[in-house]
Amino acid sequence: MTDKVKKIQSGDVRTASRLIRHLEDNVHEARSTMKDIFPLTGHAHVVGLTGSPGAGKSTLVDALIEAFRKMGKTVGVIAVDPTSPFTGGAILGDRIRMQRHAEDPGVFVRSVATRGALGGLSRAVGDAIHIMDVMGKDIVLVETVGTGQQEVDIMHYAHTVLVVLIPGMGDDIQAIKAGILEIANIFVINKAEREGSSKLRKELITMLNMAPDSAFPAGWRPPILKCENAFQPATFSQSVMDLAQTIHEHYEHLVKNNLIGSWSNRKAATEFNEAIRCAILDPILNSLMQNGELDAMIRKLVNKETDPYTLAEEIAGRFLKMG
Amino acid sequence: MTDKVKKIQSGDVRTASRLIRHLEDNVHEARSTMKDIFPLTGHAHVVGLTGSPGAGKSTLVDALIEAFRKMGKTVGVIAVDPTSPFTGGAILGDRIRMQRHAEDPGVFVRSVATRGALGGLSRAVGDAIHIMDVMGKDIVLVETVGTGQQEVDIMHYAHTVLVVLIPGMGDDIQAIKAGILEIANIFVINKAEREGSSKLRKELITMLNMAPDSAFPAGWRPPILKCENAFQPATFSQSVMDLAQTIHEHYEHLVKNNLIGSWSNRKAATEFNEAIRCAILDPILNSLMQNGELDAMIRKLVNKETDPYTLAEEIAGRFLKMG
Repeated sequence: MTDKVKKIQSGDVRTASRLIRHLEDNVHEARSTMKDIFPLTGHAHVVGLTGSPGAGKSTLVDALIEAFRKMGKTVGVIAVDPTSPFTGGAILGDRIRMQRHAEDPGVFVRSVATRGALGGLSRAVGDAIHIMDVMGKDIVLVETVGTGQQEVDIMHYAHTVLVVLIPGMGDDIQAIKAGILEIANIFVINKAEREGSSKLRKELITMLNMAPDSAFPAGWRPPILKCENAFQPATFSQSVMDLAQTIHEHYEHLVKNNLIGSWSNRKAATEFNEAIRCAILDPILNSLMQNGELDAMIRKLVNKETDPYTLAEEIAGRFLKMG
Repeated sequence: MTDKVKKIQSGDVRTASRLIRHLEDNVHEARSTMKDIFPLTGHAHVVGLTGSPGAGKSTLVDALIEAFRKMGKTVGVIAVDPTSPFTGGAILGDRIRMQRHAEDPGVFVRSVATRGALGGLSRAVGDAIHIMDVMGKDIVLVETVGTGQQEVDIMHYAHTVLVVLIPGMGDDIQAIKAGILEIANIFVINKAEREGSSKLRKELITMLNMAPDSAFPAGWRPPILKCENAFQPATFSQSVMDLAQTIHEHYEHLVKNNLIGSWSNRKAATEFNEAIRCAILDPILNSLMQNGELDAMIRKLVNKETDPYTLAEEIAGRFLKMG
């Protein structure tokens, strides 16, 4: 085992931060460190938290950190930022409040973003989870903004998935995608003091009642928790403590019912897909993008100078050993 | 040009049907026929129609066929069936009513399904669109069930995208995904005689009002049309005639504002993605699946006998020329 891995195992924040940054930058050596990290994983309870922008997720994560710390657990937080660090910043800025935990050695907060056009966010998040796991964090909270396919992929890494909703006009239509609802283990109605809270709750209950029993492994029906009055610390803290407790109960449910295995399978399938993409598609697309060939190919398709079938054969012939 | 292509150009239904079936079955010769078909495309107005199960899409498609025929247009219909033809059948059965047009040489209805685990539905639909286009159909209607990523991909082939919604309990939450809403050109509230119709309409208007102007190329704001009383033929026919007219207006809008080009680009990008997947990922996954290696790899990941990083390198080394 390398010194670097030993340092990470001892919880060294600087080494871990540098490794996460190198992985984002695709530094080759960082990948080989991950080969040593991976077999050491499996300690952390990974908790995913998603919902639409404006649902108050950052405030909730901040409060959850406090709640888990009170329960004696160490916490890692991965704030997934789909915007480029060169153009974005608003979302990251919103997370500055979490920095009040910066002095606490039991808390480690990192933002993960991807550089480059090819995605890979889900892989970067997987890497960061593994690193925090090996650092010894009891809970790894992964917060994503939005509810697209990318978020669903990321949530496959989590044992427990929280979907955060808020009451209000148009929210039901705008904020929710069926793909996310299907993977929720716990629903949180945040800002529950607002009008429309009980309507939202009713809609969720209706939706859950329509789902077949097979949607609830070993009988876990996603509970619907309310968090309200973030500006009244005592009330808010209590509801977040209840939430932290429910998160813990979900993990115990998985352990008790031998469901950790099926989570491992789902996670491994996601890792396999990421590996294939990273090993095969990224190098090909990178190669085609570097000399402007990709644009030229699409232009040729538009102008009907080539067809998708010929193109597929050409690409296979050029890049595939078996082609 | 081969005899086969000439027959298809003359509208020969048997030759076209056989080609579509061979493409689904991945017969190699069928791909090479498609190379001759592709450059001849570009005549048809491709109309996508999607929405959740139970939204009455088949009835609507059936009525739209009649409306377009009254307008003097020939019609191809592609009913996309995500279920396997070996296990499913309920959805196809639901489409039997369209068969009343079976005697009309101006109408050609085909179901497209994929066989095998690897997907490729979007490519199969693209193939069928190209074939119907070259057969000379003025309108090609593509009907999909559901609103997942697969449906969004398929809708990229369409000039005009219809999203069909119905009023009623839980529908707003269950039926709609933001990805689909974003690509809608026309909303249809079907079964509009039901309670909740004006609520649904209001929610759609709210949502459209929240979107930035850039969401509406050249100022086309998706109109919201109502279709009601499918059991009162006169009323229903009139609303469907209005819908057919609006579909036609959307196409004219694209032509008038030089937006066909940006549609071509979007379609070509989808075709490129499909080509890459078909040329690269399918052969690799097929090869790994044939000897049970895929399962073994996932098992090794679960048991931490390997890691995603090593796996990626192995796969690249084995399959990629550049690896």
